[in-house]
Amino acid sequence: MKRCSLRDLGFKVGRFRTGKYNSITDVRGVRVGHYTQLKDIKPSDNSQEKICIRTGVTAIVPSFDNNYEKRLVAGGFVLNGIGEITGLTQVMEWGWIETPIMLSNTMSIGIVHQAVIEYMITKYPQLGRKTDVIIPIIGETDDSFLNDVRVSSLTKENVINAIHKAKSGAIPQGSIGAGTGMTTFDFSGGIGSSSRTLPKELGGFTVGVLVLSNLGHMHNLTIDGAVVGRELDGLYPMEFRRRYSYGSIIVVIATDAPLLSNQLSRLAKRAALGVGRTGSFAASTSGEIMIAFSTANKILREEQGRKKYLSINFISDAHINPLYEATIEATEEAIINGIFYSNGIKGRNGHFSPAIPLDKVQKILDKVSNNRFEKNT
Amino acid sequence: MKRCSLRDLGFKVGRFRTGKYNSITDVRGVRVGHYTQLKDIKPSDNSQEKICIRTGVTAIVPSFDNNYEKRLVAGGFVLNGIGEITGLTQVMEWGWIETPIMLSNTMSIGIVHQAVIEYMITKYPQLGRKTDVIIPIIGETDDSFLNDVRVSSLTKENVINAIHKAKSGAIPQGSIGAGTGMTTFDFSGGIGSSSRTLPKELGGFTVGVLVLSNLGHMHNLTIDGAVVGRELDGLYPMEFRRRYSYGSIIVVIATDAPLLSNQLSRLAKRAALGVGRTGSFAASTSGEIMIAFSTANKILREEQGRKKYLSINFISDAHINPLYEATIEATEEAIINGIFYSNGIKGRNGHFSPAIPLDKVQKILDKVSNNRFEKNT
Amino acid sequence: MKRCSLRDLGFKVGRFRTGKYNSITDVRGVRVGHYTQLKDIKPSDNSQEKICIRTGVTAIVPSFDNNYEKRLVAGGFVLNGIGEITGLTQVMEWGWIETPIMLSNTMSIGIVHQAVIEYMITKYPQLGRKTDVIIPIIGETDDSFLNDVRVSSLTKENVINAIHKAKSGAIPQGSIGAGTGMTTFDFSGGIGSSSRTLPKELGGFTVGVLVLSNLGHMHNLTIDGAVVGRELDGLYPMEFRRRYSYGSIIVVIATDAPLLSNQLSRLAKRAALGVGRTGSFAASTSGEIMIAFSTANKILREEQGRKKYLSINFISDAHINPLYEATIEATEEAIINGIFYSNGIKGRNGHFSPAIPLDKVQKILDKVSNNRFEKNT
Amino acid sequence: MKRCSLRDLGFKVGRFRTGKYNSITDVRGVRVGHYTQLKDIKPSDNSQEKICIRTGVTAIVPSFDNNYEKRLVAGGFVLNGIGEITGLTQVMEWGWIETPIMLSNTMSIGIVHQAVIEYMITKYPQLGRKTDVIIPIIGETDDSFLNDVRVSSLTKENVINAIHKAKSGAIPQGSIGAGTGMTTFDFSGGIGSSSRTLPKELGGFTVGVLVLSNLGHMHNLTIDGAVVGRELDGLYPMEFRRRYSYGSIIVVIATDAPLLSNQLSRLAKRAALGVGRTGSFAASTSGEIMIAFSTANKILREEQGRKKYLSINFISDAHINPLYEATIEATEEAIINGIFYSNGIKGRNGHFSPAIPLDKVQKILDKVSNNRFEKNT
Repeated sequence: MKRCSLRDLGFKVGRFRTGKYNSITDVRGVRVGHYTQLKDIKPSDNSQEKICIRTGVTAIVPSFDNNYEKRLVAGGFVLNGIGEITGLTQVMEWGWIETPIMLSNTMSIGIVHQAVIEYMITKYPQLGRKTDVIIPIIGETDDSFLNDVRVSSLTKENVINAIHKAKSGAIPQGSIGAGTGMTTFDFSGGIGSSSRTLPKELGGFTVGVLVLSNLGHMHNLTIDGAVVGRELDGLYPMEFRRRYSYGSIIVVIATDAPLLSNQLSRLAKRAALGVGRTGSFAASTSGEIMIAFSTANKILREEQGRKKYLSINFISDAHINPLYEATIEATEEAIINGIFYSNGIKGRNGHFSPAIPLDKVQKILDKVSNNRFEKNT
Repeated sequence: MKRCSLRDLGFKVGRFRTGKYNSITDVRGVRVGHYTQLKDIKPSDNSQEKICIRTGVTAIVPSFDNNYEKRLVAGGFVLNGIGEITGLTQVMEWGWIETPIMLSNTMSIGIVHQAVIEYMITKYPQLGRKTDVIIPIIGETDDSFLNDVRVSSLTKENVINAIHKAKSGAIPQGSIGAGTGMTTFDFSGGIGSSSRTLPKELGGFTVGVLVLSNLGHMHNLTIDGAVVGRELDGLYPMEFRRRYSYGSIIVVIATDAPLLSNQLSRLAKRAALGVGRTGSFAASTSGEIMIAFSTANKILREEQGRKKYLSINFISDAHINPLYEATIEATEEAIINGIFYSNGIKGRNGHFSPAIPLDKVQKILDKVSNNRFEKNT
Repeated sequence: MKRCSLRDLGFKVGRFRTGKYNSITDVRGVRVGHYTQLKDIKPSDNSQEKICIRTGVTAIVPSFDNNYEKRLVAGGFVLNGIGEITGLTQVMEWGWIETPIMLSNTMSIGIVHQAVIEYMITKYPQLGRKTDVIIPIIGETDDSFLNDVRVSSLTKENVINAIHKAKSGAIPQGSIGAGTGMTTFDFSGGIGSSSRTLPKELGGFTVGVLVLSNLGHMHNLTIDGAVVGRELDGLYPMEFRRRYSYGSIIVVIATDAPLLSNQLSRLAKRAALGVGRTGSFAASTSGEIMIAFSTANKILREEQGRKKYLSINFISDAHINPLYEATIEATEEAIINGIFYSNGIKGRNGHFSPAIPLDKVQKILDKVSNNRFEKNT
Repeated sequence: MKRCSLRDLGFKVGRFRTGKYNSITDVRGVRVGHYTQLKDIKPSDNSQEKICIRTGVTAIVPSFDNNYEKRLVAGGFVLNGIGEITGLTQVMEWGWIETPIMLSNTMSIGIVHQAVIEYMITKYPQLGRKTDVIIPIIGETDDSFLNDVRVSSLTKENVINAIHKAKSGAIPQGSIGAGTGMTTFDFSGGIGSSSRTLPKELGGFTVGVLVLSNLGHMHNLTIDGAVVGRELDGLYPMEFRRRYSYGSIIVVIATDAPLLSNQLSRLAKRAALGVGRTGSFAASTSGEIMIAFSTANKILREEQGRKKYLSINFISDAHINPLYEATIEATEEAIINGIFYSNGIKGRNGHFSPAIPLDKVQKILDKVSNNRFEKNT
């Protein structure tokens, strides 16, 4: 069965419509780029085990503008802190972002950090001389089950390449980019995306979510409320599952709704509920961390210094609830899409993350789902 | 159809077994007492509208011990802060509780506060003279849809009565005690409870949850993953639903597992995922606040002063995940039980919260639930 | 020597000028009212110890407007959480206040809570029927060293009286209102206030601070950097000092600068540095809690529902630092003023908090202060 | 005048005694290593401005043990979040550290990150294969006023060198290691340290503090309560001062007192009060971030998995206050020492951070300090 999205299978999550591509790129200006690294290296010292590289990097470029000069209002939330988005402390204190948001594996934060700085100082000649230094925003999860993280395989060029390749429209998902070596509910798949566009009378805004997901036990996998994983669990022997290193998800939320920083942090909190609905219990060793930004609210660097007063528009809290629902729905569906699109992947030390069997999932959902999606509408 | 629990209907949530009473009282020592106030008052000034009192108070007494002298380790979490548990700042800073945990409506916090202090100073003659003052722990949600909150109807005696009546074993649920005037997913019902007992090999601990629930839109109500509310939504006219005042849940989590304060705060965070699984999106006007305590870890007031060093046992984080899952399951089921047990209630100004139609729910679940519970096992 | 402020003694704190009254009331619209309760009661049961009531309540009314309809943007910070401001969870989540801010002793929160609700429902007939319920904002510290807190002595009328008496201009400080029975650095005094008005070129804004202070050991008391307390410490026998119950300060910060909620929370954090400069180490048993509001940013209840979008002005972060400095200076000076204005007070069980000896303080400061204030300029 | 510490000048901060070296290394097992990079590079493209490298890295190795296997209990606090300690999210969630703590400039986090990982995987062959990956802990402040941060000058070898050079005993301070290009209160100096050893009857514990300091305006510099900066301010022309890029301090606190993670986080909060006492107002653009660890409480990786229950000793909160005071005192003195030890430094673009004039400081302190230190005792 060809890999596809949950909707291609005839099911959906929640009640709101998706954007055109059912992807974070449905928020105008947001672009996504991947660099994927899949290679086996014969070790130089003739040791018997070959080195398996199963990793990559994903870049989310938040707007068509010069973000360093036109900062976007942003917020965040830490559901479980056994993980990291570098720079999040600053995002939550100041309430804006000024760089791309990067995703990669835990041990590659250093090289991604360097690459983002190189990318930024090349692009902005005043950076660090006449204007402020930057703190890159890099989310990580741990692909060491499949990837040999002891080998520092990514280069600065790889990372900058991912930024440069970022584009709008449909985006590749599954075992790709930063998601290459990730495992979700014991299946392969890491990068997933989904979006919701609210009806006009609720504001017409779009919320797009992209996840780097690496969490969960198979028996808990829940799709649209159906504990699909419980029925699949017996099909896969336990001895091939990872034991201790599972865990973590990074959720990136973009919206064109004008929001304040603390409203975006509240939005980010709702993404946690979407994570929970897929069957995650936020395991003790897991990092569930969310970052959210609005493309509608820009803070101009130049004005911040020159002007004593700034002004900002935002949605009245009395009208914000549909954005919360949309965020939860898109987060849940993004995680599922990330698994659905992956073909399965073999990695180091004989480890293996299988592709989720879509035909079996379909049968289970056919039986129990009450959220059947009419494909032809 | 007689009111009953979700399990009585043949369905369950999650994978772990309940405790004996499927209630927070399954944690040994934890007792619950209610005081319910249901009355219509003819207004003295001959105005036409009668005054409807639909409110009450619920007390959770955390142990058989003298809690003021033998404090229990505790923690908490605020998912959404438009509400309050008084004293939670102190619980989270110090990491223990020393009083009963009280629940009531938003505008009655004052009288409950006074009553708890009266109860405590009567019981502990040294309190406030030779030993420290206390800060009562009172969680609230807003019953103003059904209850006339402008009338200060509860007395200190009512509150103390709830504490004195607290008992072990099966506890009344639904529209009772603090839950009397509450509305959950547009149905009546506020107080619900559930528990989980882990298998011996996972530690054998019990987690019990009691909720005071007052949140949600009918169309989002999700039971064991099935969006039951979507199918019920058309049966109830929109004009009778509340509009702005909905929102809030207080979750009280008890466990006999030995945990540190920060571990209990992490447990409390997981309860938020259970709330999310019922269909809540943590509405902007809602207060989703959790408090958790362990009956296995006591801090003796007398030792705190006399000894320079204390010692505490706790579950290694590598073995804590089953407690997380148990908390999520029990929270989700407690909310559902709170609705299931309620008979519907009429309140002020013609407002009405109907009982959930159990027969219709059963039919929907029969069709879609994949978590059928064998009643006779 | 007549009681007076630090400035009357010829010394000042920091570099900015005070407002007209060197008081929180220098922020236009902010008014302060006290109710003080000082009485000795012969116990009915003929026990030998008389009951000493040394307590009260202080109300800060934040603007001339109807605050329930025109909410003021607000924020807060908890330096140390062994204490409470009720309602602070909501203030920090939503970012506004809609009631007076009340201060009293720990055990009187209940009666103050009831009184504020009675005051509000009398004033706003729609409250709780057509519009939302409220959560009162009440800060507390513990006066049990001098006051018999087991006797519930304050009435709702006393509390409402404090609100009604609130006025602009110079305000009484020291052992008055909520500060009546408080002890600061082992001296009497609880309510203190100070303000700063920035020069025109820095915006011309005013920051006013009022503290309810009840913390500190005498030997740490620091005034304008001079550890005055070390030299005074030997003059007062240790056996009369309190031992365990010391601790806590509530800091209320008002400003007419237009700020966002998160900016006000950041302002509130700076107040903590002002507390630290007086010699406090934020003792383990202490609650150091701050709340800040802006009279320049109002959010209209009616607009929140009717309008989909709101707009807000705020000071660019690049220009906010003088407000931080002003907050620190005013907080430090407010604490000192609270001690300076008090005449000393005897309380229950022979306890005694002496007035700080101003003549001795002056001699010490004359020797070491480098911040001499020219009285006649 | 030869550079020296505040105590060498005859003054002290606070009331407790220092450890043997008045340094963080007074906590047994804690070692510090620096790598300093000072060079001028003629640019290859013949542009006229030479490139000035004024930077470095500092390593704090927390114990003699294998920290990866014997984790140390830790906590942290963010006073102001415009900066970063990578890994702090995890430290605060889990409550331990397992790597050295590194300090460097903002733009070098990437290379330090890579180097720490290389150092760790070399040392621990199972890391990332059989046991967990790590998240390095790297604190940063911004030296771009003096250092050309656009040039990525540090190498992995430099960083690992700093770790390997780490040693006990007296440590070099001032413009060295990560502090090389830092500016504090408009004077040169970045790395400073101080310690306190409590008297036996208060537990006899040692608290050591090391700061990487880069904050403050000269006119606010306060030493032992005397606003020394106000008198020095006129001596240095304003045009040479930095304007926008100032800000940030990282405070590392070590203690041999047995504390829980949340107790260490509370200790870290007190360090903020020490920062405030030097005249910092925690500027809007500043990152004031603290991390604290205890060498007395180890959590063994092997036991965490093998044992279901762990046990931990900790100081009763009733006896913790002297540690709070000690932390504040040592933080304040560490910042001052960092300035005192530096000889002044010239950097890029003609920028210059002068050495503080110790003779003038001494004269000012002689006049106003009431905390004279007898050198010969």
